[in-house]
Amino acid sequence: MDKIKQNINGIKIIPLRQINDERGAVYHVLNSTDSHFTKFGEAYFSKINSGVVKAWKYHKEMTQNFSVPYGKLKLVCFDSREDSATYGIITVLFLDPDENYNLIQVPPKIWYGFQCISKQDCLLLNIADISHDPYESMSEGINSSSIKYKWR
Amino acid sequence: MDKIKQNINGIKIIPLRQINDERGAVYHVLNSTDSHFTKFGEAYFSKINSGVVKAWKYHKEMTQNFSVPYGKLKLVCFDSREDSATYGIITVLFLDPDENYNLIQVPPKIWYGFQCISKQDCLLLNIADISHDPYESMSEGINSSSIKYKWR
Repeated sequence: MDKIKQNINGIKIIPLRQINDERGAVYHVLNSTDSHFTKFGEAYFSKINSGVVKAWKYHKEMTQNFSVPYGKLKLVCFDSREDSATYGIITVLFLDPDENYNLIQVPPKIWYGFQCISKQDCLLLNIADISHDPYESMSEGINSSSIKYKWR
Repeated sequence: MDKIKQNINGIKIIPLRQINDERGAVYHVLNSTDSHFTKFGEAYFSKINSGVVKAWKYHKEMTQNFSVPYGKLKLVCFDSREDSATYGIITVLFLDPDENYNLIQVPPKIWYGFQCISKQDCLLLNIADISHDPYESMSEGINSSSIKYKWR
């Protein structure tokens, strides 16, 4: 699995396979046999309208597995873990089905937000390792002063 | 869970929730706490070009959980299980994100095929309870004489 890249400590960027033919394609997402698979909690889509920003969010316990089968998404992550080797780092990742068809695995305790940067809407699939639970997440406004990133 | 409908014995049609706001939506898919959830094997997308038929396929062991977040899909299922109360039945189901946003759970030993019937391509998400294994599936051609359904 030497194709897996890391940026902020614990965030994994995993290239995903697409098998294309004249009828369409099969897009791999996540397999229980993958070395980066932990467990299955819940799968859901976020549909994000063109241009829209959804930010900021933080999970205390949830590991998320993001893939984008439609549209082009910008994902911004901020490492606020004081004991992390990448503490304070902000990273910007792009996800789409064409040039950046990757799985992004985001561990808990990372602030993140995303924006649909395509003219068409975006579909983001999240396969999370626990079920949705409002008590394990936190939010900040888009213009939060504690994260040094300006959405446009 | 009295909203769950059955047609061919074992095929479940589960209405899925969508939470819409001005920024987009959250589309539920599958939760490990759902009564119909069995286990997680693999998640992948089938992209089907407009008008294209992919048929026929049969799994000896795999239970599939289908949802369609983009496009409009026709799913046709045939019960060839001689010991089934619905033996010989063919059923036609529609899946899309607007009017038919359902999870269709297809148990093993059902012949099925699908067609993208929208002008735009379709995206079909399958969350299967086992990983892909070519030895547990069988195929027939679109015009198979053993299934009394004519694709157009």
